[in-house]
Amino acid sequence: MLFSRHTYVERRKQLRELVGNGLILLFGNNDSPMNYPANAYKFRQDSSFLYFFAQHREGLVGVIDADSGKETLVGNEIDIDDIIWYGSVESVGDLAAQAGVENHAPMAKLQDMVSEAIKAGRRVHYLPQYRHDIKIQLADILGTHPNSLEPSLDLINAVVKLRSVKSAEEIEEIERACEIGYQMHTTAMRLCRPGVTEQYISGVISGIAASYGCITSFQSIVSMHGEVMHGYPSPRPLEAGRLLLCDAGAETNENYCSDHTRTTPISGKFTQKQKEIYSIVSDCHDLALDVAKPGVRYYDVHMDVCRLMTDRLKELGLMRGDTEAAVAAGAHALFLPHGLGHMMGMDVHDMEGLGQIHVGYDEETRPSTQFGTNALRMGRRLQEGFVVTDEPGIYFIPALIDLWRTNGTNAEFLNFDKIEEYKDFGGIRIEDDVLITKDGCRFLGENRVPYHIDDVEQFLADRD
Amino acid sequence: MLFSRHTYVERRKQLRELVGNGLILLFGNNDSPMNYPANAYKFRQDSSFLYFFAQHREGLVGVIDADSGKETLVGNEIDIDDIIWYGSVESVGDLAAQAGVENHAPMAKLQDMVSEAIKAGRRVHYLPQYRHDIKIQLADILGTHPNSLEPSLDLINAVVKLRSVKSAEEIEEIERACEIGYQMHTTAMRLCRPGVTEQYISGVISGIAASYGCITSFQSIVSMHGEVMHGYPSPRPLEAGRLLLCDAGAETNENYCSDHTRTTPISGKFTQKQKEIYSIVSDCHDLALDVAKPGVRYYDVHMDVCRLMTDRLKELGLMRGDTEAAVAAGAHALFLPHGLGHMMGMDVHDMEGLGQIHVGYDEETRPSTQFGTNALRMGRRLQEGFVVTDEPGIYFIPALIDLWRTNGTNAEFLNFDKIEEYKDFGGIRIEDDVLITKDGCRFLGENRVPYHIDDVEQFLADRD
Ligand SMILES: [Mn+2]
Ligand SMILES: [Mn+2]
Repeated sequence: MLFSRHTYVERRKQLRELVGNGLILLFGNNDSPMNYPANAYKFRQDSSFLYFFAQHREGLVGVIDADSGKETLVGNEIDIDDIIWYGSVESVGDLAAQAGVENHAPMAKLQDMVSEAIKAGRRVHYLPQYRHDIKIQLADILGTHPNSLEPSLDLINAVVKLRSVKSAEEIEEIERACEIGYQMHTTAMRLCRPGVTEQYISGVISGIAASYGCITSFQSIVSMHGEVMHGYPSPRPLEAGRLLLCDAGAETNENYCSDHTRTTPISGKFTQKQKEIYSIVSDCHDLALDVAKPGVRYYDVHMDVCRLMTDRLKELGLMRGDTEAAVAAGAHALFLPHGLGHMMGMDVHDMEGLGQIHVGYDEETRPSTQFGTNALRMGRRLQEGFVVTDEPGIYFIPALIDLWRTNGTNAEFLNFDKIEEYKDFGGIRIEDDVLITKDGCRFLGENRVPYHIDDVEQFLADRD
Repeated sequence: MLFSRHTYVERRKQLRELVGNGLILLFGNNDSPMNYPANAYKFRQDSSFLYFFAQHREGLVGVIDADSGKETLVGNEIDIDDIIWYGSVESVGDLAAQAGVENHAPMAKLQDMVSEAIKAGRRVHYLPQYRHDIKIQLADILGTHPNSLEPSLDLINAVVKLRSVKSAEEIEEIERACEIGYQMHTTAMRLCRPGVTEQYISGVISGIAASYGCITSFQSIVSMHGEVMHGYPSPRPLEAGRLLLCDAGAETNENYCSDHTRTTPISGKFTQKQKEIYSIVSDCHDLALDVAKPGVRYYDVHMDVCRLMTDRLKELGLMRGDTEAAVAAGAHALFLPHGLGHMMGMDVHDMEGLGQIHVGYDEETRPSTQFGTNALRMGRRLQEGFVVTDEPGIYFIPALIDLWRTNGTNAEFLNFDKIEEYKDFGGIRIEDDVLITKDGCRFLGENRVPYHIDDVEQFLADRD
């Protein structure tokens, strides 16, 4: 258990009060089969279960009666065969007691608990489920189809409210993840040379993530084609002159995340053309840090970044016209088709499984439907204790450029002739994790992976 | 694609002939969510789909009409959004053509194809499903419950028959996996010193697996408690005097596996007590290599190993009485509660998801129900081209020793007073991958990770 028993007791009490009434079910994860039932991927506990019930074992369900306050940890005990294969382990009762949960019960009882609640006309609250085994289990309990589950909006809102604000001790754990991330990214930069494969670099940094924590917080993007948003590493060797985009994060053993991106010149120095684009991205990156603070909408920080980017792309002759009008039309999204950032915590896109609209938006701040801005995962007003990523990027995506040019999309603001010259450029992104403080914000992680042009070139010159 | 189009055409033709009639469905895998729907574990294609349809993309189903010979690759095309996120990719028709499949269709057509076959009174063949999303999809198509699927024994038997015998080009790919395994295990041995954590070593070798191939072929076992069969690595530092058991394998980018185990003295040298037990295991390991060949049942190789182990444990005073009687009673299973090995190929326990009884046994060789021998995954007669693991071990499992002593289990053959002295010993296993050749067998992998006592100590003395 990462935190004190008191912490978990208090979290469940707050959850109960926020939800108000009914029976709350929080499903822990089971092992997830890779290529046959007994060959599972590395076990990953569900973040919300972990947040409220603290335990990493598979096959558990936390039940909270919001009316009576009764709490139960549901799970089956292990037998002698399991001891041979997995060693001696604690009983479900022990696990419950550690987390301050008074009751425990075998899995077979879950059906009874839910049936009784339904019979009594009470609400049964559960979150959206992303694991299909749990979908089947829950659907059977409720007598419905796995794809017809109806998650509780009250429970979603309560969980989002609690998990959004990170405590000081949670921040400490995220700082640990950022330190692993620092090692991963400085190692990637040290290895980044012509002839080394993307896959090799990705493999080594995933090994660092696993050496000090869990597997990476998401599938690393390590690619000479930064313009492909999910450019998974390939066995192709790095080419001199190109840029390597590396977007990768760690998870601590307690599943708190980091998420950083760096874009490194494979030859060790940026070309003039690369410097011009890179410096726009790094200035946008720094701008967010100046603007983000409690009370400010992250949507507006995103828009500030889009305006700066547009101004600077105009200077390079890639965009033209009135900046406000161009941004309002979404012309910049040809270069930045994603949002400035997302919440981060126990999930790298924190709570994304609960529905992005509930996490990143609220009644005041509604999501945009415009291409580009519609990919902004976090728009609402920032609060002290929020952790968000700051990850502007500029990409030259040949298929998108062709499509917009053909359709004349935002042609008023885009110099397509000039843009053509960048079609083999690739993409640049710079990403750090930001804590919203009392009156501003700061980067998380004690050590900063170099990202300003001079610092990057100096680091590459000084390596080995 | 790993092999020529002809290879895949030929495999499907043989499959069709073996199954005889009906509609064969081979499901490829989808992305498997880790902690929210869009955050997936590293994609792993289903081995049987890959064996017959060659392609690594998610969301595909291979359909073979065993009567007409018509073959269809089913899957949805990608759109412009996908191009931004995943880059330009080939069409489903292109993928089909590469594998020599004449037809392709969108996923929505799969229901029609199956419904038509059922309406015509034809059999619909599918394999046991281990992914719950596929279970739901297939159950919906068939109008049944995800847990009520009825896999086709004819299809299982046909797939097992084909996949059991590895071609020369498959062996080459397994040798590649073994070379990655060689790097993993020699690195683990180099790192194995007091103070280094199990997790650190496990992380570094998983990084090697990922640098040159996929993730590890299974969750690595890296533990000072070798007596716990699935002893996952922990953040605890290695202790001088103990043994580190490391069981880990690689998968190539084409998902062919390796699986090796070494047990290393953390202090760099074995104690006398460790040497006595270790030499039994290494002699058992070598014995299998002498005995295994086409026509011999692997069950009998396992039993030969059990007899040698019993003889040697008698010399140490840990066992007693008649060797044949002791082995017949299963007394040795206190020390060796698992089998000598399993098939290996595109799955590390090859085809285990199809049912161990169909893979490791047949009408002639039936599985044992006796504790220990019932865990032997491979019993039937060996054939040229089979790949099996040779992995004897000796473990001192306190909970099992206590249980047997209390119950008087096999007390006639076990010197429990002497065994008590080994309760903190841990466990030893040595594992290599064995190819059954025309008239014998050989270890796979060009380089051999040292395992004889003198070689291990020499390697540890010479490192860094
Ligand atoms: Mn991010
Ligand atoms: Mn094995």
